[in-house]
Amino acid sequence: MERIAIIGLGLIGTSLGLALKKARLPGVEIVGHDKEPHHASRASKRGAVDKTTYNIHAAVEGARLVIIATPVLAIREVLQTIAPTLTPGAVVTDTGGTKGMVLRWAEEILPPTVAFVGGHPLGVKEESGPDASSPDLFTGAPYCIVPGKGAPPEAVKSVVGLAETVGAVPYFIDAQEHDSYVAAVNHLPFLLSTALVWMTTRSPGWREMSKVASTPYRDFTRWASTDPQVQRDIYITNPEGIVHWIDEFIKTLYELRNLVRGSGADPDALEKALIAAWQERARWLAGNTPGQQEGPSLPRPSDAMLSLFLGERLAKRMRELQERERGGEKGRYPWGRR
Amino acid sequence: MERIAIIGLGLIGTSLGLALKKARLPGVEIVGHDKEPHHASRASKRGAVDKTTYNIHAAVEGARLVIIATPVLAIREVLQTIAPTLTPGAVVTDTGGTKGMVLRWAEEILPPTVAFVGGHPLGVKEESGPDASSPDLFTGAPYCIVPGKGAPPEAVKSVVGLAETVGAVPYFIDAQEHDSYVAAVNHLPFLLSTALVWMTTRSPGWREMSKVASTPYRDFTRWASTDPQVQRDIYITNPEGIVHWIDEFIKTLYELRNLVRGSGADPDALEKALIAAWQERARWLAGNTPGQQEGPSLPRPSDAMLSLFLGERLAKRMRELQERERGGEKGRYPWGRR
Repeated sequence: MERIAIIGLGLIGTSLGLALKKARLPGVEIVGHDKEPHHASRASKRGAVDKTTYNIHAAVEGARLVIIATPVLAIREVLQTIAPTLTPGAVVTDTGGTKGMVLRWAEEILPPTVAFVGGHPLGVKEESGPDASSPDLFTGAPYCIVPGKGAPPEAVKSVVGLAETVGAVPYFIDAQEHDSYVAAVNHLPFLLSTALVWMTTRSPGWREMSKVASTPYRDFTRWASTDPQVQRDIYITNPEGIVHWIDEFIKTLYELRNLVRGSGADPDALEKALIAAWQERARWLAGNTPGQQEGPSLPRPSDAMLSLFLGERLAKRMRELQERERGGEKGRYPWGRR
Repeated sequence: MERIAIIGLGLIGTSLGLALKKARLPGVEIVGHDKEPHHASRASKRGAVDKTTYNIHAAVEGARLVIIATPVLAIREVLQTIAPTLTPGAVVTDTGGTKGMVLRWAEEILPPTVAFVGGHPLGVKEESGPDASSPDLFTGAPYCIVPGKGAPPEAVKSVVGLAETVGAVPYFIDAQEHDSYVAAVNHLPFLLSTALVWMTTRSPGWREMSKVASTPYRDFTRWASTDPQVQRDIYITNPEGIVHWIDEFIKTLYELRNLVRGSGADPDALEKALIAAWQERARWLAGNTPGQQEGPSLPRPSDAMLSLFLGERLAKRMRELQERERGGEKGRYPWGRR
């Protein structure tokens, strides 16, 4: 019997357990641990683990693969706790949203007899806890793999195997690149979401505003409902990455702000920017990013359908605007005459 | 036979037609017009109208209610075109996302024999065109009603009736407040979405970044896929509203940026902000906005479920953080010792 230990039975840990169980690996026993008994019992009832134990040492003892699925800052403490108990030859991985600091902790804390291979499955949703989990959370989603210094090929293979077993697409990436890119595309949205909630709910007009807040507001603020501890840990362990992209975002927002401000006199520039963004997103959804072979993660059917008709009309409109610019007819709009 | 004319058979016009047809109003005939024949024929095939005509005058002639469901900037031209043809006593309404400029146009262009009552149904989605339409698009969503100067009570009642018939919740609001509030909660998200697409796709790292872009990126950028013409018109007809909220958003983002930057030394302040935003959004979803009686628009079951367990834990954690602050124990975190 081979043992896999999952430390932390929230959304990610429980979903990994469910996906592993669904794969029916022969001769594998999954042991779960969570310091929150409520989580452990829910994960167990949902069938994500074969058994749970409140004793973290008992959970990792004899395990060939240990998956740490706690919020990022707790990973350090878990590593310190389990380091003396780990079986020589064990592979330790994590699911944290930042990788640089986690890899430094692993190098500093773990004995040389065990291997560390960082992991970051990119299947997420805003809800948290074992009850929000799903065996399909990772299906088709990228699974970043960041091997620790000196991790042997077999250890890396184990974590690639884990990613593939849960239905994800393994993606090798360097820790520094991971932390910068993930901050831009996945963590900045959390912060922007929180910023919109902050701005609106602290506004004197919120009482009235809240009544006209509709689908765009609900969708856009969804990620502000992510467990604040998970968010906090992501920011605390990668402040440079986040701050860099906040600054870039503010710069971009200023550009758009100036296009909006000048749109009475020059609506073309604003329209071109909007069409370009529309086209870039459609390209990303279609998986046509330059050099990209695989499609992006989990496009919804409605996303993929994004009106071919509209796409053609926009391409035509873009050519018109470009020709108009070359012809020096900038701004010749009926409403420009106001 | 009473005639309702719908001018513009895109997402909103076709959805209104479908919702009106679903209500099976006796003795009512719905005539549709779109300058794009493809749209008219799709709306007709979907059963949103009783007939369509390419002649806009034929569409509005004899109509008791005329609904203009085009992008905002086109409303002016439509008003100019139909003004001479409108039947005395007719009620004209629109569905534009901004109201101040539309009301000025109506006052300037329409004869005193017809009434104008501005409307803004807040059921939206990112897709566009008649094929994306649905009779349920407006169910439970707010429907802003902004009567034009001198619109008689019966005219206002007609538009309230329209809102109720399509399943929406009529909400009276002044044009200036509408344009400011809607800009904050519904239009700013479009622009932030476009800004994120712009920032990422123009980044030198986009090729790699696009591979780790997951659900938060897809969700957050969804509104960048809104028809650029619809977006452009919203910004061009309300630049002050949008620019004001962009500036407020940048200020809020700076506050959060500084909390992230200082999170190594003071993680409490960041955590409190994240918990506060979590709680405010949960309150909005639960319809507990101060003074608000009705619930917010269309909460999804998963939104409404937003873990009671997490809510309790966060309330407890917030009290702890507040007590710690009072006790002067700020920043005494294990990871603060690094």
